[in-house]
Amino acid sequence: MGDKPQKATAFVDWYLATVEAAGLTDKRYPVKGMNVWTPYGFRARRELDRVMVREIESAGSVPVEFPTLIPQTEFQKEGEHIKGFDAQVYWVTKGGESPLDVPLVLRPTSETAMYPVFSLWIRSHKDLPLNVYQIVNTFRYETKTTRPFLRVREIHFFEEHTCQVDEAAATERVRSNLEAFAAMAKAFALPFVPVRRPEWDKFPGAFYSVALDIPLGGGRTLQIGSVHHYRENFSRPYQIAYEDREGEQRYVHQTTFGLSERLLGAIVAVHGDDKGAVFPTSVAPHQVVIVPILAGGNAEMVGTFAAGLERRLSARGVRVHLDDSEERPGAKYYRWETAGVPLRLEVGGREAAAGSVTVVDRLGGKRTLGPAGLEEAIDGALRTYDQQLYERALTAFRSAFSIARRLEELGASETVRLLSWCGKESCGRAIETAIDGSLLGTPEGELPIAVGAPGPCLVCGESNDALWALAGRPM
Amino acid sequence: MGDKPQKATAFVDWYLATVEAAGLTDKRYPVKGMNVWTPYGFRARRELDRVMVREIESAGSVPVEFPTLIPQTEFQKEGEHIKGFDAQVYWVTKGGESPLDVPLVLRPTSETAMYPVFSLWIRSHKDLPLNVYQIVNTFRYETKTTRPFLRVREIHFFEEHTCQVDEAAATERVRSNLEAFAAMAKAFALPFVPVRRPEWDKFPGAFYSVALDIPLGGGRTLQIGSVHHYRENFSRPYQIAYEDREGEQRYVHQTTFGLSERLLGAIVAVHGDDKGAVFPTSVAPHQVVIVPILAGGNAEMVGTFAAGLERRLSARGVRVHLDDSEERPGAKYYRWETAGVPLRLEVGGREAAAGSVTVVDRLGGKRTLGPAGLEEAIDGALRTYDQQLYERALTAFRSAFSIARRLEELGASETVRLLSWCGKESCGRAIETAIDGSLLGTPEGELPIAVGAPGPCLVCGESNDALWALAGRPM
Repeated sequence: MGDKPQKATAFVDWYLATVEAAGLTDKRYPVKGMNVWTPYGFRARRELDRVMVREIESAGSVPVEFPTLIPQTEFQKEGEHIKGFDAQVYWVTKGGESPLDVPLVLRPTSETAMYPVFSLWIRSHKDLPLNVYQIVNTFRYETKTTRPFLRVREIHFFEEHTCQVDEAAATERVRSNLEAFAAMAKAFALPFVPVRRPEWDKFPGAFYSVALDIPLGGGRTLQIGSVHHYRENFSRPYQIAYEDREGEQRYVHQTTFGLSERLLGAIVAVHGDDKGAVFPTSVAPHQVVIVPILAGGNAEMVGTFAAGLERRLSARGVRVHLDDSEERPGAKYYRWETAGVPLRLEVGGREAAAGSVTVVDRLGGKRTLGPAGLEEAIDGALRTYDQQLYERALTAFRSAFSIARRLEELGASETVRLLSWCGKESCGRAIETAIDGSLLGTPEGELPIAVGAPGPCLVCGESNDALWALAGRPM
Repeated sequence: MGDKPQKATAFVDWYLATVEAAGLTDKRYPVKGMNVWTPYGFRARRELDRVMVREIESAGSVPVEFPTLIPQTEFQKEGEHIKGFDAQVYWVTKGGESPLDVPLVLRPTSETAMYPVFSLWIRSHKDLPLNVYQIVNTFRYETKTTRPFLRVREIHFFEEHTCQVDEAAATERVRSNLEAFAAMAKAFALPFVPVRRPEWDKFPGAFYSVALDIPLGGGRTLQIGSVHHYRENFSRPYQIAYEDREGEQRYVHQTTFGLSERLLGAIVAVHGDDKGAVFPTSVAPHQVVIVPILAGGNAEMVGTFAAGLERRLSARGVRVHLDDSEERPGAKYYRWETAGVPLRLEVGGREAAAGSVTVVDRLGGKRTLGPAGLEEAIDGALRTYDQQLYERALTAFRSAFSIARRLEELGASETVRLLSWCGKESCGRAIETAIDGSLLGTPEGELPIAVGAPGPCLVCGESNDALWALAGRPM
């Protein structure tokens, strides 16, 4: 254990070691940056997807799936967009032995796959809004160092695409997406801040982009998703138009909402500790692990009680795993701590005789629950665990930000800085140089920490249009 | 309606028109054979997947996901296999602007993606059996005419891959897969026959292949899945070996089990009629549609009752859709019949006043259910509907086979023929010529219709090794 990297002192190494030890992915696949979803990792991802699906369908979106391959001709219709992705796409050029007439792109994102079809689906204002989403894999020919879940070449991706009657309706959809994401983030116990990116850092082709950022400590930030307002930037080249109530032809206003497996990386990065991963119950492949402690003559009684307990919890919808392998209990404790299981139930001879269990939660709490109302008490322990996990994450979140009042304060900051910015690119670039990172943009809605009104711009001293902005070092 | 192709007289055109009218797919995507999963089609597929996941996980399989892209070097390790797929794969040759060092294949199936990693996962007999499955898209550069769900270039695919200690254990896994498939097929109301394919038609690289065939009428058959026993054919080139209890190194014996979106096509093809699709409740995106019939002064009462009914059924877990759009009831009846919804609940003023509903099922039954125990009665109507659908399919299945006792009887048969075959390829080829189709192989287990012992081979007259075999015209 002495060689294991510590979260506080070697964050990136700690992250890589934690993902590996939890058994969430296998990086030994023979294409760099394309990893194998192991059974444990896949199940975590499946639970993550369930939360996303639940929230986006509550917000009126319906599932679709568009093809993986996009013809070059469609891909190149929106100029800004293609410029943003050109260097990063995989090209399919051959089918069997023959070169393809039109090369195909492996989708890096699906605007250019969906929008030619949207132009067929939408005719009238009665066809609007169109709110569809898909969960698919996307592909980017990454040239930077890849890292499991955070930067990979085949990406498990969630993308909502919507068409709205006008700019205001699209703005409202952006708001609705932020609300849906807040519900997801609560389920993942991930406090976040929505940040409107500066012009030079918006999504290629977008009118504006709101990124969903989380702090990772040490002044680092991670973008875990984004919501974009496209105005008519895509609907014009792709001819997505409708007849309004007055019989006029109008272009739709579009939005997109993107999330990915990066969320799983964020959950490991935010909640994990030096013992391993720590999962919120929403995502944990096993919410509860039962470890029977067999000794001497009680093996049969303990085994029977443990198996019965597994059945009872499973019948209530708890994702429970009975670890009846041949290892020592201590080895099992270690394994399931590393894997981030929320609750461990220890069942020995004393517990089996009394019908009770010893509950150890992944945040370190330990107590004995008696036989009366045992299932309800375990449900309660899961809820309490989630609350404590969220509160711990919220405390870390709040302490990850601090105010900078002068440009000289930025330096190699250990926190994400909140500062006044006039909105000019030149001042933004000066801030980026000073912090050796990025101007993330202006937070939407509530600020991550309580502050007063913004002062003058940190760079030029202009007071009139200055807004609070965030600057940090994105991973 | 006069122009609509009829199932009995123009099967293929009928199939295409039925899929289209039900709104299950959109074929206008600009790559031929790569279609869009519409919201309705996607939801049918999602339910189909749920059944597959339920049954395969009950049989001890766990989910994984391997990358979409396979390096040419791995893809070419097993010679037979690559020969079977060489002409049908899409090649990724470029990333960004640069040619890739090693070209990548879009998986046509995942043996060559998984097995290099299995060789790392498996060390000891304690790691066996390894039973994993994935649901992913696969890609085939089809040169034949494409048809939605039945023959496409991007295929929604289910594949189980297992590693077993020896040949007998692998044979047992084949049996377990056939049992799991029988449960799935029951849920889809699809009678089928497992057929061991002749040597010349087995999966590339397999020791033997059992195909899951269904008759489609007119002597046509459709393979809706397959189970393969690989023996050591892949474990040797991919070096998947383990140490047995005696400390000896042994190669694993492998099996695979493949299903695809073709199942959805089969459901449409088997159950559909001249009015449109007909879904079993297991797969129906909407199991129940409520159509309020508003007239004069009762609109509010009817609307309230219909909305309440939707809530009550939804709370019981029924997939129910309240169609409160502005169309006439007749147009709604037509639409949901075309779309294959099992039950339609008509709610007018009389029903709302009495708390009753008029139930029309997709097989033509109609009755009124009173207010007492209404939800239970609707559950019962769904169960009865499924039984009737299955019985209807079973009747059609049984009448789709007939015995041929002489080669001259084969001709352009309107049924799939059951005949005696000695097992020799030359005799098999003669049968294929005579029927202008395929010798499908020898059924595993029970025969689709009751027959006695096989007679002498239809071609050579040999009696010793003759077995019942099936011959038909695969779609």
